[in-house]
Amino acid sequence: MTMTTTTTTAATPVAPSRGALRPLGLGDVEITGGFWAQRQAVNHTATLTHIEYWLEREGWIGNFDAAAAGTLGSRTGREFSDSEVYKLLEAMAWEIGRTDDGDLDARFTSLVARVAAAQEPDGYLNTAFGRPGQAARYTDLEWGHELYCYGHLFQAAVARLRTRPTEDDGLVAVARRAADHVVATFGPDGRVAVCGHAEIEPALVELGRATGDARYVEQAALFVERRGTGTLGDIEFGRAYYQDDVPVRQATVLRGHAVRANYLAAGAADVAVETDDADLLAALTTQWENTVARRTYITGGQGSHHMDESFGDDFVLPPDRAYSETCAGVGSIMFSWRLLLAQGLPRYADLIERTLFNVVATSPSHDGTSFYYTNTLHQRRPGTVPATDVAVPRASSSLRAPWFAVSCCPPNVARTLASLAAYVATTDDGGLQIHQYAPSRIRTALPDGRPVGVDVETGYPHDGAIRVTVVESPDEPWTLSLRVPAWADGATVRTPDGVLPAAVGTVSVGRRFAAGDVVELTLPVGPRLSVADPRIDAVRGCAAVEQGPLVLCVESVDLVESDVAADVADLRLDPTGPLRFVDGRVVATVGLERSAVDAWPYAADERTAAGRTAEVPLVEYHDWANRGPSTMRVWIPLV
Amino acid sequence: MTMTTTTTTAATPVAPSRGALRPLGLGDVEITGGFWAQRQAVNHTATLTHIEYWLEREGWIGNFDAAAAGTLGSRTGREFSDSEVYKLLEAMAWEIGRTDDGDLDARFTSLVARVAAAQEPDGYLNTAFGRPGQAARYTDLEWGHELYCYGHLFQAAVARLRTRPTEDDGLVAVARRAADHVVATFGPDGRVAVCGHAEIEPALVELGRATGDARYVEQAALFVERRGTGTLGDIEFGRAYYQDDVPVRQATVLRGHAVRANYLAAGAADVAVETDDADLLAALTTQWENTVARRTYITGGQGSHHMDESFGDDFVLPPDRAYSETCAGVGSIMFSWRLLLAQGLPRYADLIERTLFNVVATSPSHDGTSFYYTNTLHQRRPGTVPATDVAVPRASSSLRAPWFAVSCCPPNVARTLASLAAYVATTDDGGLQIHQYAPSRIRTALPDGRPVGVDVETGYPHDGAIRVTVVESPDEPWTLSLRVPAWADGATVRTPDGVLPAAVGTVSVGRRFAAGDVVELTLPVGPRLSVADPRIDAVRGCAAVEQGPLVLCVESVDLVESDVAADVADLRLDPTGPLRFVDGRVVATVGLERSAVDAWPYAADERTAAGRTAEVPLVEYHDWANRGPSTMRVWIPLV
Repeated sequence: MTMTTTTTTAATPVAPSRGALRPLGLGDVEITGGFWAQRQAVNHTATLTHIEYWLEREGWIGNFDAAAAGTLGSRTGREFSDSEVYKLLEAMAWEIGRTDDGDLDARFTSLVARVAAAQEPDGYLNTAFGRPGQAARYTDLEWGHELYCYGHLFQAAVARLRTRPTEDDGLVAVARRAADHVVATFGPDGRVAVCGHAEIEPALVELGRATGDARYVEQAALFVERRGTGTLGDIEFGRAYYQDDVPVRQATVLRGHAVRANYLAAGAADVAVETDDADLLAALTTQWENTVARRTYITGGQGSHHMDESFGDDFVLPPDRAYSETCAGVGSIMFSWRLLLAQGLPRYADLIERTLFNVVATSPSHDGTSFYYTNTLHQRRPGTVPATDVAVPRASSSLRAPWFAVSCCPPNVARTLASLAAYVATTDDGGLQIHQYAPSRIRTALPDGRPVGVDVETGYPHDGAIRVTVVESPDEPWTLSLRVPAWADGATVRTPDGVLPAAVGTVSVGRRFAAGDVVELTLPVGPRLSVADPRIDAVRGCAAVEQGPLVLCVESVDLVESDVAADVADLRLDPTGPLRFVDGRVVATVGLERSAVDAWPYAADERTAAGRTAEVPLVEYHDWANRGPSTMRVWIPLV
Repeated sequence: MTMTTTTTTAATPVAPSRGALRPLGLGDVEITGGFWAQRQAVNHTATLTHIEYWLEREGWIGNFDAAAAGTLGSRTGREFSDSEVYKLLEAMAWEIGRTDDGDLDARFTSLVARVAAAQEPDGYLNTAFGRPGQAARYTDLEWGHELYCYGHLFQAAVARLRTRPTEDDGLVAVARRAADHVVATFGPDGRVAVCGHAEIEPALVELGRATGDARYVEQAALFVERRGTGTLGDIEFGRAYYQDDVPVRQATVLRGHAVRANYLAAGAADVAVETDDADLLAALTTQWENTVARRTYITGGQGSHHMDESFGDDFVLPPDRAYSETCAGVGSIMFSWRLLLAQGLPRYADLIERTLFNVVATSPSHDGTSFYYTNTLHQRRPGTVPATDVAVPRASSSLRAPWFAVSCCPPNVARTLASLAAYVATTDDGGLQIHQYAPSRIRTALPDGRPVGVDVETGYPHDGAIRVTVVESPDEPWTLSLRVPAWADGATVRTPDGVLPAAVGTVSVGRRFAAGDVVELTLPVGPRLSVADPRIDAVRGCAAVEQGPLVLCVESVDLVESDVAADVADLRLDPTGPLRFVDGRVVATVGLERSAVDAWPYAADERTAAGRTAEVPLVEYHDWANRGPSTMRVWIPLV
């Protein structure tokens, strides 16, 4: 097993040593306005502070202090709560890199010191195991999450190393000591085991990439190869829960716990790239394809089971109680991004975009201090407002909640938003590729060192015009490639040479650019109806309305305000009615049909009473439930 | 609070002191042939022995021996495993009453002795609590199930008392000591608490009815009134899980854990009847109505969530992963039967029939030694054959399994089948009512003491002719009432006076009967299509085929045998095609449509490729998965 060791200087979460595309970092790309800049600002001003407050309040940071002091008695939080602290550190590190916020840097450094103090001399670091009264180290790999926690520690260290490479706050040293301990314990001559929750796999590869230490990549490869060989116990959910049922390279679809599955696939993709393992990469590609075709909600959300937070069988995608965990969305982006870098295919960026707009953006409230853990596509009962002063169970609230007993999602959203600029664009030998559209400023260099700079202006996703202005260009020709999403039939591109159709996929404009040149892509972002593959039985006879990358929904608040109905239960969408814009919102024509049944609900006839038709405004799915308790549905039965 | 104390002599699980109808016992009614007699025979010859074997093998009976010997160290089984032993005792008691099997009686007596030996001097009896190394008594009412276990003990004692009233094997004494202990501990002056799993409520009422001890009924009433006042902890599933969210008399629908909900409702109905509490009975009636209209599968199955085995919101009834726990079916029958006795309305017997044929009959295999715990309505993947030598998780198998880590369902089915004759008929002052149709022999007395006897001959449910021959009759007129199921539009009844239409509900024939008189009800049991209330979104655009009280389904085995298709996924039912009988099986016309999509599954068009049409034989739902792994669906999309 060999790797090309490169110590990248790009401030990006993922920096493969080979692949079709090269990532850019936070130093290269800045999101300057619009949908995502607004969310990044809220993340900066509110969410990071909010998370830090709750971690402190719940005692999850305090666990480190007590461990360091040798006074860790009754520990608080779940066995994996250390990881939330690490995810906050990662989010802070990217945010410091993005904004150069000195206050935040001070908080970061202080938090690192508290974590570092708890590390044991041999590198072991976990507040839930190994002390008097606690289970011994690594005695519960199924559920203990020790290696999972290291994974998030390593990703935090990578974020710091890539944004503040010369800073000596100690986090990178802590991570390397822990990683060395992992290699010593679980390495080629060590215990043949894996963690019940994948995460250390991508993190070890990245730590290897960032530090140039090949042992970490080799350790990740070992973990990937061991997975699926039954080293973990056969639990009630089955070994598929933690992907220990089938070796990674033999699997054909993601299965089991949706976050675990995506984190593992991301790590396996990293290993495949670093070890130049085409077979493994092909297996992962097949898994991605089948998962997208058969196990993904229209929002990009993944995982339909509440009980084990897992994927269901193919086409089991009920909007009722869609689990669609926010973290599974983050994991899906991680996996897709790695395949995008490896293969350069726009379909990966399509799924990333869909998941960003409809899962990641859905989780936080406008003010950034409450979150969805799960993202249902159909809310049948107006919920109750969750308490703001206690952690709630992960999936019990119909409204966003400030904190959860298992609170993985808030810091996962935070680290994603803080590092979002890294997913906007890439380069290859021929030029620059833009994958995600937001007002942005890109100043980088092509791989041969020639500087290139463009500015992106757009009102996307509400406006389909994406204007790319070249502000710096080498004298030689290079190619600007723009993604044309799969839904964007009829897109056009205007170059200095004229207007051309832009087929779905990628439109590439190669020329000798000069500063001031403009390339403008126009995507048809008007509302459209979508129906599902009929094998997705749960939404038969329904349609969803989409608008560019946004999934829309109907919410009871608007029905009441329009005096149409009290609830979303009895609406039928009229597909012949126009989808119009009224006051900037998409309005649909619906028929109102009330069921006349109030008894045994199965009979020869449908027994509904048709009522009047009406027009109702739709809501962007990510924006639902921001006006108090409501009912909501994405899939609307057709007239 | 007063009650009319009656010590019934009928060998029946439920003997209210008042109500519209009076139950008959196993001494009055014998099922002599047909569908249910065959299942009762298998229950007798195979299932009871099978259950006893597994209880012994798993050590759940041995727990009592060890408790008695003071050697209970590492106990086996879940905290409620004692209850499975009690349910076996109950099933055995009914079966001894039904068949007078001396060998079975000896096994029963021996098992009672082992249980009795473990009872503590103050009446406490539970192998999971109170000993060194165990949690103290009643320290975990949320999950400990101590009172729940007593409930099953009491029901076993009632079964014994009513089938062998003079036998002194000790079970009744054990139960009374335990009940006295419960009254002393949780009575009017005792601890204000309830059990996390309802069951003691109906059991205490019945023990009170059977023994004439009013304190037990009063204790049940206390437990019912305390429920919903938040004496139990607020767990992750919420207090609705164990119905501790809303007082019973304020609730409008069953909710939370479906078995708990039904057991509680049954007990509350018992309390309402014994205390003549019309308000409470009205509340329970509303709960039944709303649950049947909004939260019940076409099979009669209840409970759609896997995670907490609970009811979902109204109309959340996905066939995929329908949980529909077998025990919830048993509980639903318990609840409906009590309302039937109280109110006499045929709708309750309709639901009982549906649940018997499509839930209770579905659980056991033909040979009576493997069982479904959950009863899905849509199996998308052929499962694997479960191991026969280990207990499997409750819901993981797509085929029936011999035993479960939580094995409540097998003995629940066994006790239901053994006591089934008690649900066939009732009397009131005016005559005899037959609720369930099976070849049977009814010899009883009207409440005034006049003997009456009828024989029922029928090939029901496959043949709609139900021939009731009077074999003994008083000289005075009386009324024979026969249920006409809600699906039986066009039924007729032939009496000595001629043929008349029999409207849905109840057809009553009042006359001076003489021995030899025949009343013949003819029900239209031919196959029919049913569609669902459109608010049950998950089956929109689908139909189910029913045949009399039987739900049918399509199973892949038949598709392969007919060379139609490999799987049930791509069938569309043609509602214009005839439902024909071929070789005694219902055959439906289907169109074959294969999805042409193997990519992102949401688009403007359905993208299916229509294929040929074919005829496929359907399977009675209770009979599916008896020919090896298969795929199956009850709800078939319409062409």
